[in-house]
Amino acid sequence: MKNTKPYQPSHSYVVILAGGEDNNFWPISRSNYPKQFLDILNTGETLIQATLRRFQEFIPTENIYVITLEDYIPIVTEQLPKLAQENIISEPERKNTAASITYISSKLNQLDKDANLIVAPADHIIGDEKTFQDNCKNGLHFTAKYDVLLTLGIEATHPDSKYGYIHFGHEIVGDEDVLEVYQFIEKPDVDTSRMFLEAGNILWNSGVFIWKVSALLQAMAEFQPSIFQLFDKVKRSLNTSIERSVIKQVYQKCASISIEYAIMEYARNVYVIPSNFKWNDLGTWTHAYERFQKDSLSNAMNDSNIIAKDSSNCVIQSHDKKLFVIGGVHDLIIVNTPDALMVCHKNKESEVKEYFNAVKQEKGNSYL
Amino acid sequence: MKNTKPYQPSHSYVVILAGGEDNNFWPISRSNYPKQFLDILNTGETLIQATLRRFQEFIPTENIYVITLEDYIPIVTEQLPKLAQENIISEPERKNTAASITYISSKLNQLDKDANLIVAPADHIIGDEKTFQDNCKNGLHFTAKYDVLLTLGIEATHPDSKYGYIHFGHEIVGDEDVLEVYQFIEKPDVDTSRMFLEAGNILWNSGVFIWKVSALLQAMAEFQPSIFQLFDKVKRSLNTSIERSVIKQVYQKCASISIEYAIMEYARNVYVIPSNFKWNDLGTWTHAYERFQKDSLSNAMNDSNIIAKDSSNCVIQSHDKKLFVIGGVHDLIIVNTPDALMVCHKNKESEVKEYFNAVKQEKGNSYL
Repeated sequence: MKNTKPYQPSHSYVVILAGGEDNNFWPISRSNYPKQFLDILNTGETLIQATLRRFQEFIPTENIYVITLEDYIPIVTEQLPKLAQENIISEPERKNTAASITYISSKLNQLDKDANLIVAPADHIIGDEKTFQDNCKNGLHFTAKYDVLLTLGIEATHPDSKYGYIHFGHEIVGDEDVLEVYQFIEKPDVDTSRMFLEAGNILWNSGVFIWKVSALLQAMAEFQPSIFQLFDKVKRSLNTSIERSVIKQVYQKCASISIEYAIMEYARNVYVIPSNFKWNDLGTWTHAYERFQKDSLSNAMNDSNIIAKDSSNCVIQSHDKKLFVIGGVHDLIIVNTPDALMVCHKNKESEVKEYFNAVKQEKGNSYL
Repeated sequence: MKNTKPYQPSHSYVVILAGGEDNNFWPISRSNYPKQFLDILNTGETLIQATLRRFQEFIPTENIYVITLEDYIPIVTEQLPKLAQENIISEPERKNTAASITYISSKLNQLDKDANLIVAPADHIIGDEKTFQDNCKNGLHFTAKYDVLLTLGIEATHPDSKYGYIHFGHEIVGDEDVLEVYQFIEKPDVDTSRMFLEAGNILWNSGVFIWKVSALLQAMAEFQPSIFQLFDKVKRSLNTSIERSVIKQVYQKCASISIEYAIMEYARNVYVIPSNFKWNDLGTWTHAYERFQKDSLSNAMNDSNIIAKDSSNCVIQSHDKKLFVIGGVHDLIIVNTPDALMVCHKNKESEVKEYFNAVKQEKGNSYL
């Protein structure tokens, strides 16, 4: 790690993407209460609260925005009471991250032509917060100087088809913690991801991006002109009383695409800061398992009402006052809430989504 | 099966032993609500209700008694409303079956010197009720004629150290469905039980006994004189207003021993009726599993709120309205009640009692 470079807090902004729906942590996470609003790891903070706090330590709170689905506004308002209401941006419908990022970038571009923006998911776990913050500061220093698209890259440890793969090249002279990017490949299949890993010079995309809003809008104009133009046409209505009704119409027409597929695979001005802050995107219970406190038989239990005997390597999480007696089981995920219980073998976790189709068919959406 | 022989209903009595405490069906069964009062198999009747009904079909209801621990009297009264209060006998403390049977036999002996008594556990499952009833009638016919101790024997199918083993001999001339018994061995170890099985001419003791109360008291006098004398001394106070206070003192002094260990292993006048009425003593969830309705993957589920995928050979029983999603598990016992949940591998079920020691230590008795 090189020394931290100077950045300009007053022109530095953050947008926390908090509109995602995720039932990978079912039955704790639900469509109407997804994981960013939960304290999955029992830390005392929900994931979005931890995300906000991490940025507040080096970005002025008035420069931090949350963008989320309309339905989640009351939860965000309740969980982040220090955030001003105008910093909580409501999306009328779910149109993926390209829309969210273009929307907030268009707003900020009206307020501050030099706005330098960190884009961060609301639901990631960051192990070493100081390192993360230093990476962000150095990123802001770099993107203030150049019209580039910068991402924080994570050491790729195994073939995994759900991440973006970054094939990096040389260090940048004068900003040696930044590397040029040859290719950004979103979610390759497992064989391709294995090939990349073996070839070396590969990082995973963390989902944390840094860029000037002007650079982002430039990239959108070039690679996603229809989305860009929808927002560009209404830019003078943003930050005014008619913003909400205008945005509702924009979202109706807007394509749903992730920022990675929208621009990162195409752009030639992509750069990466290799990071080692222990990142976990908490994709599944099995991912979370690695981060839980565990007993001597490697059971991750969140409650003193759980008694596990002859059992190992289980995630056992209870969210009501029920007594649990667990005996002779291994590698299970057992999660209990007041209205639902899941007992699932770890190696079947990826099929939980299919189980939900059965739930939906038999019970409707009320449990999801 | 031979033809049914005549018996005298007016001198025929039943005592249903209902004082047992059993937490093998935890968390459904509890110390204060043991399994005889539960409808484990979801038949619409609790086990004791089914037991009473089976006898009511051939024994006058006024001749049917239930003997149980004082604490369970309200449950018995509620579940068996057709039984007169004087037919529900209260035991001041738990002193095992020799005491219970000597007590009711002493009472009946005061009322009817020819009383011919069927002793039956409250918590057994009988598959073919007609055959069972015919066996009982033939037993009553036989014990009315002879001063013998008769038991119903069950085909022994595997080495099991928790049953009594009956080594039988010849048929009785004139009562060909009755066999003489060479030896009654209560709960041999598994190796011995295997040896018995291989030797042949072996039946399991069903726990259903038939005898004249005079024959039973004679056997108690011979093999357990101290217990016999405790009850014999107070026999004139039985069926009077001072019975309860007298019995309280008797029970304080009475040894705690099962009827099998007390007399069946010693007596030389033991006989057996081989029966094939599909008997199940519902000792454990695994025993009960055999009797449950099962889905195409052999899961025994009691509730439409249970969705099981990629799972097989499980007992999944829910007793609250919670949605269950079960995925990728096999051979598990999953039982849910409003205040407790058990997830246990079938091959660890015998260790559940040890788990309870942990519960007791950590949570006290309230969950047991």
